[in-house]
Parts: sequence; C-alpha cells; structure tokens
Amino acid sequence: MAPNKTLVYNKMPEGIPVPGEHLIVEERTIDLDAAPPAGGLIVEILNASYDPYLRNLMRPGVGKKFYAAMLQPGDPVRNGTISRVLKSDSPDFQPGDIISASLPIAQYAVVPDPQAVRARKLHNPHNLDLGLFLGPLGMPGLTAWAGLHKIGKPKAGETIFISSAAGAVGQCVGAIAKREGLRVVGSVGSDEKLKFITEELGFDAGFNYKKESVFDAVPRLCPDGIDIYWENVGGDHFEAALSNLNHGGRVPLCGMIEDYNLPREKQKGVRGLLAAIYTGATIQGFLVGSPEFGPVYYKEHQEKMQEWLADGSFKAKLDITEGIDKAAEGFSAMFKGENLGKALLKIQ
Amino acid sequence: MAPNKTLVYNKMPEGIPVPGEHLIVEERTIDLDAAPPAGGLIVEILNASYDPYLRNLMRPGVGKKFYAAMLQPGDPVRNGTISRVLKSDSPDFQPGDIISASLPIAQYAVVPDPQAVRARKLHNPHNLDLGLFLGPLGMPGLTAWAGLHKIGKPKAGETIFISSAAGAVGQCVGAIAKREGLRVVGSVGSDEKLKFITEELGFDAGFNYKKESVFDAVPRLCPDGIDIYWENVGGDHFEAALSNLNHGGRVPLCGMIEDYNLPREKQKGVRGLLAAIYTGATIQGFLVGSPEFGPVYYKEHQEKMQEWLADGSFKAKLDITEGIDKAAEGFSAMFKGENLGKALLKIQ
Repeated sequence: MAPNKTLVYNKMPEGIPVPGEHLIVEERTIDLDAAPPAGGLIVEILNASYDPYLRNLMRPGVGKKFYAAMLQPGDPVRNGTISRVLKSDSPDFQPGDIISASLPIAQYAVVPDPQAVRARKLHNPHNLDLGLFLGPLGMPGLTAWAGLHKIGKPKAGETIFISSAAGAVGQCVGAIAKREGLRVVGSVGSDEKLKFITEELGFDAGFNYKKESVFDAVPRLCPDGIDIYWENVGGDHFEAALSNLNHGGRVPLCGMIEDYNLPREKQKGVRGLLAAIYTGATIQGFLVGSPEFGPVYYKEHQEKMQEWLADGSFKAKLDITEGIDKAAEGFSAMFKGENLGKALLKIQ
Repeated sequence: MAPNKTLVYNKMPEGIPVPGEHLIVEERTIDLDAAPPAGGLIVEILNASYDPYLRNLMRPGVGKKFYAAMLQPGDPVRNGTISRVLKSDSPDFQPGDIISASLPIAQYAVVPDPQAVRARKLHNPHNLDLGLFLGPLGMPGLTAWAGLHKIGKPKAGETIFISSAAGAVGQCVGAIAKREGLRVVGSVGSDEKLKFITEELGFDAGFNYKKESVFDAVPRLCPDGIDIYWENVGGDHFEAALSNLNHGGRVPLCGMIEDYNLPREKQKGVRGLLAAIYTGATIQGFLVGSPEFGPVYYKEHQEKMQEWLADGSFKAKLDITEGIDKAAEGFSAMFKGENLGKALLKIQ
C-alpha cells in the first residue's frame, strides 16, 4: 500500500474553517499495484480546484434543495481536479491521458466509474498551463460565460459592475464583457488586485473597497448607472449596485461569499431591494451545471477562451498553493481574500 | 368659488404618515362656474384609490431612478380616481361620463389635458360597483394579472405563496392563480382576513402571521415547496419563501411594504438570498405601467375579471373610507394593516 495524503472534512466550522481543526490532511493509503476496477481508472492528481461553494457543504443539511451532498466528518473533500491516468480498464482512457474529473483532493484516486465523476480528456491544442483548466477553462470560466450571456444579456455600450473582480469568476466575466464592448468596472480588496484588473485585464475602472466605500465608489465610477451587476459578494456591494441600477438591469447571482461562512440568522441581509421594483430589475440565481447554462455554452466557451489565453490577450491569474500538506491552509486563505486569481492546489 | 377639500402632503414622515401632521386635508377652492379649459374637463371625483406606493413619494428624492415625481410640501396627493365629468371641451368626453383618471385626491378637479392624466371612459357592461375599477379592475388588478402571467408563469399543479394575500393585489393574484389550477397559499395579518381568503376567495390554505411564524407556517402549508412567491411584504416573508423555493422558482417583486416606511439604513434586509442561487430562482421587479406589463394584458384582464366579478365567482373586497375629511386617516390605516381588501376613499 502506498501513502495517499487526503484533505478530509473533520468538523463543522462556524466561520472560516481552521486548518488542522475543521479541515485536516490525513495520511490514508491506496494500492497502486492493484489492477484498476472494471471499467475504471487509477489516477494521480496533479491539480485540485478550490471553490467557495465548498464552504456551503460544511453546514447543517438543507435536504433536497441543495445541489451537492453535505460533507460528513471523515469525508474527503471532493472537487474538480486535473489528473493523469496511471492505469485504465476503460476503453475511453489510456495511461498518460490528462483528464479533468471531480475527485477527492488527494494524491491519488481509484475511479470505479469515470462517467460518474465527469471524467473528460483535456482538449489542449495550445498546450496551455493545466491549472487554467480549473479556472478560466474550467467551472469558474464556464460559470462566467454562461451566466453573463444567459442572464446578463450584455449589449455593447452598457456598463457592468463586477464584485470580487480579480477572483476566479470575476476576472473571466470582465474579460468577456470587455470583448462584448461593455464598460467594465470592478471591485477588489487590495491595491495589487486593483492594478491587476485595470492594467492587466483592461477593466475601464476599479476600486479597492477596503479604501473607499462601495456606496461612494459605484456612483463615482458608474455615472450612467449599472446595466449588469455581477453578484459574487452580497452585503453592501449588492446594496450599492441595486441603488445604482438602470431600468431593466440584470443581476446574475453567482455567489454571496460574505454569507458563506454565516448561518442565515447571522447574515446582514440585503436592504434596498425595493429598487429592483422601480427599475424592473431581474435578479437570477443559477448553477453552471443546470441544463440551460453550462452545457449550452461549453463549446463556445472552450474555443474562445483558449484562443484568448493562447494569444495573450486574456492574462488570467492563478493563485497556487503548493503541496498536499498545505491543502487546508490554501482553502481557508480563499475566504480571507488573500489569493489573487483562481485558487488551486498543485499536488504534483 | 366653491370649496374643494384636498388631501395635501405637508411634511416628510419618518414612519407611517400621521394625519394632520404629514398629510392634511386643506380647504382649497375651485371655480365650478367657469368654462372647462380648451380641450379639457371639469370633474367631480367620486372615488380615489389608496396605494402603498404613494408612501415612496414621501422620501428624499432618488432622482431619475424613480418612477413618479417626489411630493413637495404643499402638493396635493395624486392618484387613480373614478370621476364624473361635469363640463367638457373635449370631443372624447360628455358631461355625465364616468371616467378613470389620475387626479389630486380632492372633491373636484380641473383637467386641462385628459390624456396626460390617462383619462379613460369606464367600460362597465355588467354595471359593477365603481370602486372595483380602482381595485381588481384597476391598477392593483392589472398589476396582479400582468406580474403573475409575465414573471410568475403559472402552471397548473404548482404552488404559489402570496404575502399580504387579502390586500388589493394579493386577493387578485389568488383569484387568478386558483383559476390557473395552482395550489394557492396566503399569508394575512388577522383571523378575519384568513377567513376571507380561505372561505370567500377559495385559497387552499392560509395563516395569520401574527399568530404563527412564517418560518413554521410556510413549510407546513407548502410541503412540496413553493414554485411562485408573490412578494408584497419583504422581510421575514421573503426569507421564508426563499428557503422553501423549488428549483426554477419565480418571485415577482410587487411590493416590500415593510420597507416603505423605512430609509435603507433602517431596513432589516433580506437574508438567505443564497437560496436563489441553489434553486436558480428568478426574482424580478416590475411596474405595471411598463410597456411589457400592463399594456400587454389590459384587455384580457378587463374582460376576464369583469366576468368573474359579475358572476360572483370572485368576491373581491373593498375597504372604504367615507368622506374627504377622513382622507389622511384612510391612507395611514393602510400601513397599519387595518384594512381588509382594496383601500379606497369614497368622496361623493
């Protein structure tokens, strides 16, 4: 048996999960000498994605209404990975293939049913950094693409305001919106991120919400109002956007990261929703996996975004935590706003 | 000159307007012996509508984003009325005609431009009570009709939860939804209202939110979840609805009456909006006057609802304040939940 260090959910956190307490790295084992299961694979995991939604699996269950099963103490944390096939009993995969798949965050995994974990061979004609397939070319990028087109309905000349603009999804929304001819304004939590979105991503304007109130910055930077508000954050950002929304505004609800670490009773709540009535705004939640979202836009998203990344016109940023031993620290850092760009764990 | 008592905005209220302080009835005058203005009318006002949105005109201005001009101290309060034409210089109206028009809440009015106040002759083939043309057959009824069809997209077998269900709009939403084959559940603020919606309007279920927490009542009465939430109220109602919403739920935002009397800073805010992401819910504000709402549904609404009211299958309730002297009291009562049904003022 070989050692197989694994990121394990240990205990329900109240706020941001504490490494070593709520999330631990456990030395489990795996038999790398065994044959792969019938129709299945044994893989080595190269990169694993950190995504804020995982925090929502660390709560009391909310039953049938949730989109993924709640974590139980002792469960490995599963998420999107980029992995290399070591052994295969499936006709669809060969040893050496690089795949994306939803797997435990660990060094290795046995995959009894590749389809059940959405294993898919990477199509990487431009030989891009594999980490990008967890960010702009993965779930966050597809989320941006599908949500912006389907709900945001961008029109050239309009103004979009993006919260958490340097983040995994936000940077993609901005990149797409620029190419659609919109005026793009972003909110970030550090001057370094501000420099990134304005100088490297080409946003028209941005601000550091830790230095200027969002209630001042939004009307200052969006003098003609907001046509699309990309909601990643909740709280004051949502309120400021609502009170500067133009008639017929659209609000794709992608995340409300301020609320992820709080039970409903402790959340601040969004005030001023009345403005949505005066403006006839549409506020729509979505999950990238829903049939009318991700699947519809997958092909277009891959083609276009691979092209932009390959030609250097979209300088996406990855924020890499190195090594499985740091897996819990990397996860928690994401909620402290310490990362710049798409957060991921490089395992090997 | 004849006396013309008029409901006048006197001073900005902080909470619910106090009669005699924020709203006063002033004795103004009118020359009833004069000729009508060129192309215009002189009318006697029979009934005036009380609508919660009027409270929103009694705030600090929010400029271009608002849908009606803010009231200034000394302004008469204008709203929908049913009036009788006394004198006409317009080819479209004859003395004796009964019209609907947006006019000052007063005994009489001079109407220089009938079109500008949306004057329209009543089409009343079933000889229905004129007050109904300010309620189920007026703006509130059309609001219900357009919002439910356009945003709610009701399908037989679904569940709709209606807040403020006995109110002007709520009772109409319920009546329409029943006829569309939905399971209709309503929240009201008194046992008398509960009796009204379940026994007279034929709602499938309801509860008095002053006696049972909306967080208990909603899951109890909507065991299969909510497909459409008709939002009139805000606050806890909105939160309870969100946390019981089914996948693909729709939330027409019609009002948030709990917030009307509070500035944004003092509002409680809506928590749990995260649920809109998991369920892919669409939350959409609207104003009945927008081109894609009221105007599209006007004809259908009038025909069908006149029929239901005439054949007695829809027992709409009006809550009538008698006499212009009580005009301010009637307005404030609406925000205290004291009325049952559509609130209006009978002037003569």
